[in-house]
Amino acid sequence: MDLAALETPVPVVDLDIAEANMARMQAYADAHGLALRPHIKTHKLPALAKRQVELGARGITCQKLGEAEVMADAGLDDIFISYPLIGEAKAERLAALAARVRMRVAADSRAGLATLARAARHGHEIGVVVEFDSGNRRSGVMTVDEAVALAREAAATPGLRFDGLMTYPTSAASAAFLAEALPRLRAEGLEPAVLSGGGSPKALRTHELAPVNELRVGTYIYNDRMMVAAGAATWADCALTLHVTVISRPEADRGIIDAGSKSFAGDIMPAGQAEGYGYVLEYPEAKLDRISEEHGMLDLSACARKPEVGERLRIVPNHVCPVSNLHDRVALARGGRFEGFVDVAARGRTV
Amino acid sequence: MDLAALETPVPVVDLDIAEANMARMQAYADAHGLALRPHIKTHKLPALAKRQVELGARGITCQKLGEAEVMADAGLDDIFISYPLIGEAKAERLAALAARVRMRVAADSRAGLATLARAARHGHEIGVVVEFDSGNRRSGVMTVDEAVALAREAAATPGLRFDGLMTYPTSAASAAFLAEALPRLRAEGLEPAVLSGGGSPKALRTHELAPVNELRVGTYIYNDRMMVAAGAATWADCALTLHVTVISRPEADRGIIDAGSKSFAGDIMPAGQAEGYGYVLEYPEAKLDRISEEHGMLDLSACARKPEVGERLRIVPNHVCPVSNLHDRVALARGGRFEGFVDVAARGRTV
Repeated sequence: MDLAALETPVPVVDLDIAEANMARMQAYADAHGLALRPHIKTHKLPALAKRQVELGARGITCQKLGEAEVMADAGLDDIFISYPLIGEAKAERLAALAARVRMRVAADSRAGLATLARAARHGHEIGVVVEFDSGNRRSGVMTVDEAVALAREAAATPGLRFDGLMTYPTSAASAAFLAEALPRLRAEGLEPAVLSGGGSPKALRTHELAPVNELRVGTYIYNDRMMVAAGAATWADCALTLHVTVISRPEADRGIIDAGSKSFAGDIMPAGQAEGYGYVLEYPEAKLDRISEEHGMLDLSACARKPEVGERLRIVPNHVCPVSNLHDRVALARGGRFEGFVDVAARGRTV
Repeated sequence: MDLAALETPVPVVDLDIAEANMARMQAYADAHGLALRPHIKTHKLPALAKRQVELGARGITCQKLGEAEVMADAGLDDIFISYPLIGEAKAERLAALAARVRMRVAADSRAGLATLARAARHGHEIGVVVEFDSGNRRSGVMTVDEAVALAREAAATPGLRFDGLMTYPTSAASAAFLAEALPRLRAEGLEPAVLSGGGSPKALRTHELAPVNELRVGTYIYNDRMMVAAGAATWADCALTLHVTVISRPEADRGIIDAGSKSFAGDIMPAGQAEGYGYVLEYPEAKLDRISEEHGMLDLSACARKPEVGERLRIVPNHVCPVSNLHDRVALARGGRFEGFVDVAARGRTV
């Protein structure tokens, strides 16, 4: 079947591009002695997670237990959950995972450690990395004092293994935090085996940014408009494109496509960068400036040539990870040919 | 099981509230002689679509063929697709639907009519309503001339039945368009049986806005923060809330919840209205001002009392329809008690 025969809207993953993206990041990690631990949030596909490990990744990163369960079911056996787990139900599920695969989990509070400790009581050791903030103001402790206290408590808790520290994204602030934290930890005999940083846009500069030894990256496998805007990829490096159809041309300068926020996610570009919700490969001057759930509004005023009703377009989304999360399946292509659909097995695993 | 025992994040639908919302809209439609044709995009649940029909709705509205297929499978037998269908594959699927349920579809171009005509060639009549723009600048013809030409062509096409006109949302511009279009259509013997308007925020003022006789509304069944901001609902009328857990409190004024853009959708409020991504019922002063995929960042600086790690919160999303689309299932509650989960059967049916 030809790609052009697939009903739209449909996300299409070019495996040749994804393969090159995986190889490039693995080569970088190898060259700089970094353990690559890809974040599966971008593709949510066991097959690509396995391929990442096959190419040299040390294990995978998941955000939610539900994602880790899908990946463990598929045979991935070394999983880091880079996310605080809180509460009894999460502890029970983590215990069940730790009984069958190697598990490491982030924590940034005593309540988080208590959840991990409860899981470990079932008899399977769980690695702990303490999350610290490096400017993102999301989760993560804000001070070295807190990091050291949590590390000490993790190391002293039966069933838990203090593995090290993590942050997101890797930055100059990460380096400053580590410069202060590492001597303090070592002074207490808490040698951190893992110093985990992440973030695709600056991944290939990790060695210049901070002395981490693990690289958590997700977006690099597909890339997207934000990666291109950051100078970290070209359009030719974007492996996932959304194939859409023009379904209405109500005015000379307006085209409507059959995909909106249910297909693209509403992520907007950082202020000052490009506008709109995606980049139209066939009409680079077109602006996808408004979306509703099932409609995308193209401003064609800057286009010399304009698409007709029925014409198919390929769109690079602003942020590709939530796009994977919106589709039950993606089409796979190799050598420009349709190879089949694959279910996005870890889609929607928010719990 | 108690609602508080459900793992978070989880969307919870209060059926008592939804029932009251359905009854209110049906009573309004009945009082004003409007055929209520609820849009299932908000709930995507066959059970609620059936309940809407049981209460007096004349049929349902879907946006995509995939949604209509799910609803037809569940026994809904009068379906309007308020969306342009373009191309051979869509025509074949529409023909299959028209063979088993009463189908009406919108069109705003000759290519759209051609798709419907192709479907009708399989022998089952298809109703056509011509979509016109009333200021939304999405799909829909811009001129009365175009509307009349499409109506004429629909009426002259074997297998198609010209049913009338539709627009979104109902507005003063809709009234102006109809005032010009109706005499023109009637002069050609093209009496429109259906004049279809829509939009929940102003639904209860439809009779003042334009002389439509059909009301397409979706959001009213659940309501959301935008409906409250529009003065069309109160917090007590919001049937769907997202139950979340505080998983981190990195600073005195910051709390992190276990739900981000994968649970909420990124819809922001219209400019000048409230900020952020949702309204926290337990902490009205909290601002959910940033989200990433799995994290929601709460600014607690205005809160006298602040939530602890592990505390559960209920959040009214800005726009509830895309939230339904992000979750495989929703929890149902009645009388404040958990009644069970229901699969969101028409979730993700973008094709």
